[in-house]
Amino acid sequence: MAAPAPLSPLAPKTYPALPPIAGVRFATIAAGVRYEGRTDVMMALFDRPAAVAGVFTRSKCPSAPVDWCRRYLDGGKARALIVNSGNANAFTGGVGAAAVAHVADAAAHAIGAAPSEIFMASTGVIGEPLDAERVTRVIDTLVAGAREDGLLAAAKAIMTTDTYPKIATARVKLGEGEVVLSGIAKGAGMIAPDMATMLAYVFTDAAIAPGALQAMLSKSVERSFNLITVDSDTSTSDTLMVFATGAAQGAPLIEDAADPRAAAFKRALDKLLRNLAHQVVRDGEGARKFITVNVEGAATRKAARRIAFSIANSPLVKTACAGEDANWGRVVMAVGKAGEKAERDKLDISFGKIRVAHHGARDGSYDEAAASAYMKRDEIEITANLNLGRGRATVWTCDLTKDYVAINGDYRS
Amino acid sequence: MAAPAPLSPLAPKTYPALPPIAGVRFATIAAGVRYEGRTDVMMALFDRPAAVAGVFTRSKCPSAPVDWCRRYLDGGKARALIVNSGNANAFTGGVGAAAVAHVADAAAHAIGAAPSEIFMASTGVIGEPLDAERVTRVIDTLVAGAREDGLLAAAKAIMTTDTYPKIATARVKLGEGEVVLSGIAKGAGMIAPDMATMLAYVFTDAAIAPGALQAMLSKSVERSFNLITVDSDTSTSDTLMVFATGAAQGAPLIEDAADPRAAAFKRALDKLLRNLAHQVVRDGEGARKFITVNVEGAATRKAARRIAFSIANSPLVKTACAGEDANWGRVVMAVGKAGEKAERDKLDISFGKIRVAHHGARDGSYDEAAASAYMKRDEIEITANLNLGRGRATVWTCDLTKDYVAINGDYRS
Repeated sequence: MAAPAPLSPLAPKTYPALPPIAGVRFATIAAGVRYEGRTDVMMALFDRPAAVAGVFTRSKCPSAPVDWCRRYLDGGKARALIVNSGNANAFTGGVGAAAVAHVADAAAHAIGAAPSEIFMASTGVIGEPLDAERVTRVIDTLVAGAREDGLLAAAKAIMTTDTYPKIATARVKLGEGEVVLSGIAKGAGMIAPDMATMLAYVFTDAAIAPGALQAMLSKSVERSFNLITVDSDTSTSDTLMVFATGAAQGAPLIEDAADPRAAAFKRALDKLLRNLAHQVVRDGEGARKFITVNVEGAATRKAARRIAFSIANSPLVKTACAGEDANWGRVVMAVGKAGEKAERDKLDISFGKIRVAHHGARDGSYDEAAASAYMKRDEIEITANLNLGRGRATVWTCDLTKDYVAINGDYRS
Repeated sequence: MAAPAPLSPLAPKTYPALPPIAGVRFATIAAGVRYEGRTDVMMALFDRPAAVAGVFTRSKCPSAPVDWCRRYLDGGKARALIVNSGNANAFTGGVGAAAVAHVADAAAHAIGAAPSEIFMASTGVIGEPLDAERVTRVIDTLVAGAREDGLLAAAKAIMTTDTYPKIATARVKLGEGEVVLSGIAKGAGMIAPDMATMLAYVFTDAAIAPGALQAMLSKSVERSFNLITVDSDTSTSDTLMVFATGAAQGAPLIEDAADPRAAAFKRALDKLLRNLAHQVVRDGEGARKFITVNVEGAATRKAARRIAFSIANSPLVKTACAGEDANWGRVVMAVGKAGEKAERDKLDISFGKIRVAHHGARDGSYDEAAASAYMKRDEIEITANLNLGRGRATVWTCDLTKDYVAINGDYRS
């Protein structure tokens, strides 16, 4: 493991206080899975079965824990979540599946639940067998030490090459009551749709039936984690889960995602997931700039999204941003290679509010000095208007720096 | 323009002598299009109209010269080729189209041809208007100075961020006669299918009808330039053209690509284009390793190719190679994200002859020291066997280094 990278310059300046969430407690421990001198296992314990929803990597080669979570998600009930960092338990064959089952059995036994009510994730090196004993032997300690105020520590325990923990929280009206939702995430590398972050978990004390929770999550992820990319690579382990304890006082049980009483909750979930997704981008490996890519005037919404990702994933666009170079020619290139309808002589490109190209050629009023000054900012907005139709999309990414190469060239050594 | 990068460690150790090709002469000049102190315009002059074939970028935003070449390719006849470096004349609107027409007119007038018989290309910065006068004012000098032995100089004049000129040559039987074919290419960045290199030109004294030449080229490019990638970005200017002067003594006119007398010629063309394509990869921006990616046992040939490109374009695989790390987990990740049929528990991964993963888990006999030693080589072969079907594909790429980021972060400044 290389030395930890310095804190991302795009890290949040402040962290919100995380209020307790009725019905769930958290514990972490330094179990020595791979790293020395840091926590690497986190456990979330639900006092009563929580409703659970999840979305997972579309990789054809998912990790063993992803297989497990998918299998038991239909049950809709969670008693515990266990996540380790340092080892992804991915591409570990029968040994990997056995390790997952072993951890689930041990946790289920410790808390008096069924193994199918234990959800898991592993993140870190791929292809190395996970020594399940390192996790199972700390479960009793985790259960004994679980605390309501342990969520920030949990966010830290699941970090790999992240330079800061990612947390977000919201308090929102639900019917006549009030509920809390708080989330954590880890990301850094292999961030791309579909499913962007490697791991993200949201906990709420709202009472929401599993089917309704799944519907809300599936919609919300399309507006958040599926709109970010760091390097176009998709992890074998991507997991996003929401747990609803139902322990809030005075809030009604939501059984249908369309229930109008849940409108504020759904907006809060959208915002929370987008917040976490942006934090993942801001901590993209080696990132020094947060880039918003807008596509307007595309033939369709789908075309707009594909063009936006073509720009956001282009190494040449990303290195130009790293070099603080308003190189709109590379944006044109990325529009052109997306394979969607585009007419060169209608295309406008802007950096921030500075329109650098208009109708297929350099904008007459384009001031290179102003554009260069704009590119020095931490946050850059690139807008491509195809002037063809009404399709729009916005996606988020970061720049591609030498540090990305350094981090990923040294990861295993 | 940043200082030129040092010579790629993967550059050829020797260059072949380029024999004259009957019927074509070459000239170059330092026209000051953008660079100082180097040649930046090359001209190929055909004594009599040469048969011409071409393939071009699939970008929806092609450069002005690409538009021009496409328009006149059907005529099948070329009297001259003019290429400038330093400015791509891409995304330059009506001004760009006018510049191309202006250069064609001037060249046509100088040699007594029709403008439609003048083919052109421009490579360099996108989006800056090309000052056509800088090219037109040197045409008479170029025409006067054209020489049979000017092809290597031509290869140098079209370089941008290339660290070495790319040339290849072959002599081959055609019917009872013998013909020469020689090619030049430039590449470096924005190398991805479909059409990989930015510019490549092949000249031969064989007599081949334009339709037959086009058929041969279209087939050959699928086995060469369309199997390489540097950074997954596709240029607005990608151009590959073949010119056949027909001036060879004793070789028959080939009017049909299926003519059995042309078999050796077609094999030589395949080999020549593959040689040039490999040279482009070896000079990929910042490249220090030449990587061959083999996919075997995929469900179909098309699936194999898509998986191979998923591996070859993965920033995480490419940075692992740069870091000389046998990180086969990332290869699994790239197989998984390709979207093609894959069964984790059947997958084998090898580096060179070292099988590191077998049937979905680490190979029992995998010797990490041997794999690490292998990764220190200049040339690395990665093989993924899906063990599902008979689909195979091989593609070529290079590693992703800090120098790639440096070159592309400083390009315009």
